[in-house]
Amino acid sequence: MTLPPASPAIAVVLVRTRNPLNIGAAARAMINFGFHDLRVVEPFDLAWQEARSAVGAASILASARECSTLADAVADCTCVLGTSAIGDRQPLQPIVDLPAALPWLAQRVAGRIALVFGQEKHGLTNHDLSHCDAILRIPTLPEQASMNLGQAVAVCLYEFARSGHAPTATEAPKAAPAADLERLTASLHRLLCISGYIKPIAAQGALLEARALIHRLTLNREDTHLLTGMLAKIERKLAR
Amino acid sequence: MTLPPASPAIAVVLVRTRNPLNIGAAARAMINFGFHDLRVVEPFDLAWQEARSAVGAASILASARECSTLADAVADCTCVLGTSAIGDRQPLQPIVDLPAALPWLAQRVAGRIALVFGQEKHGLTNHDLSHCDAILRIPTLPEQASMNLGQAVAVCLYEFARSGHAPTATEAPKAAPAADLERLTASLHRLLCISGYIKPIAAQGALLEARALIHRLTLNREDTHLLTGMLAKIERKLAR
Repeated sequence: MTLPPASPAIAVVLVRTRNPLNIGAAARAMINFGFHDLRVVEPFDLAWQEARSAVGAASILASARECSTLADAVADCTCVLGTSAIGDRQPLQPIVDLPAALPWLAQRVAGRIALVFGQEKHGLTNHDLSHCDAILRIPTLPEQASMNLGQAVAVCLYEFARSGHAPTATEAPKAAPAADLERLTASLHRLLCISGYIKPIAAQGALLEARALIHRLTLNREDTHLLTGMLAKIERKLAR
Repeated sequence: MTLPPASPAIAVVLVRTRNPLNIGAAARAMINFGFHDLRVVEPFDLAWQEARSAVGAASILASARECSTLADAVADCTCVLGTSAIGDRQPLQPIVDLPAALPWLAQRVAGRIALVFGQEKHGLTNHDLSHCDAILRIPTLPEQASMNLGQAVAVCLYEFARSGHAPTATEAPKAAPAADLERLTASLHRLLCISGYIKPIAAQGALLEARALIHRLTLNREDTHLLTGMLAKIERKLAR
């Protein structure tokens, strides 16, 4: 078995990583399995400097994009998968087990996929997860679900490389990129606040729920624009 | 998806590991995926002491078996899989790609399986590989095949856990444990030396070839004993 020459359109997104060794390990796994697109969100500053300046640091690290928000990091992605052990939480997003990820993606979206990994100790927050279309779960023992970050990245990329390729943009065109969904989410949230549906005190939590709702809708690009236009019209009307 | 309560009969064997963090990472992946049986061969002494005494070190490390030879570490295993990037080598053993490992094992053997991982920098030697029934290859980019040890362990154990279980002893009983094959190998080698088939100067290399041959035969326990008895008889005859 050899990997195909063109690597799948997958971006690895590391959120608030603290340990430079883990950033390096993630980059190494990407090299092993043929992925190139690394993005880091709010990395712990020293860790990021140390990882980039390490002897033998991969060119992946030099070309990695540093972003101040997760929304920014995934803006061009049509599917955002957040890795999480979940634990006791009741997530708003559907849960996809890693071995089932490729069939799930093939049915659903195409375009660039973001694989998002949270901070070493606490993983992704509910706020982070609200930016995700689904939660990717690595099948571990439920009582020992917390994986080492570098190992989690390696296992996920192995799974995506295992089947030879991830879905490509030709299979199901026109999935909406995350940036469009974020605009729609903001529209909806604003409108619900203006309309009084959301009380000011609950505005922050309601944003997460609104975002999760929008992501669950599996919108294509046209419908996303259509809905955004509708909400804008309603908002203008309300503002008068 | 959840893992079955009983973990597959897989032993993880680390050969000459130098970095305590890697021993710890291997143990952590074993815990995540529900494996318990760790064996270390000639560990770099300080690394082993450090890994075992680390804060939060897993009970897996405390109960790990320390062996002076790989043959000793795998003696009770009926199938020994050595992980290797292979590179330019022309191995004597069959190569099994990791995603195909479970079907391959199901056809071939049952009993305890050893997953053998070599030293960080150079992996398994040809001598190590001669103790293996097959080489397990993780499908990476050929030009970037060398993986981080902890990540390689995690990826392999994920694959074995992925399908729910490894083959169990009930599926194909009576596969010969490695210790029996090693006795047969020693018999054959001794006989070939005594008979002059192997020249003294080539004895060491010929041992590896003899061992690889025996492992390729896929012998069951009875046939292994039968052949060992035959060779012993011939050897006694020659000695007279």
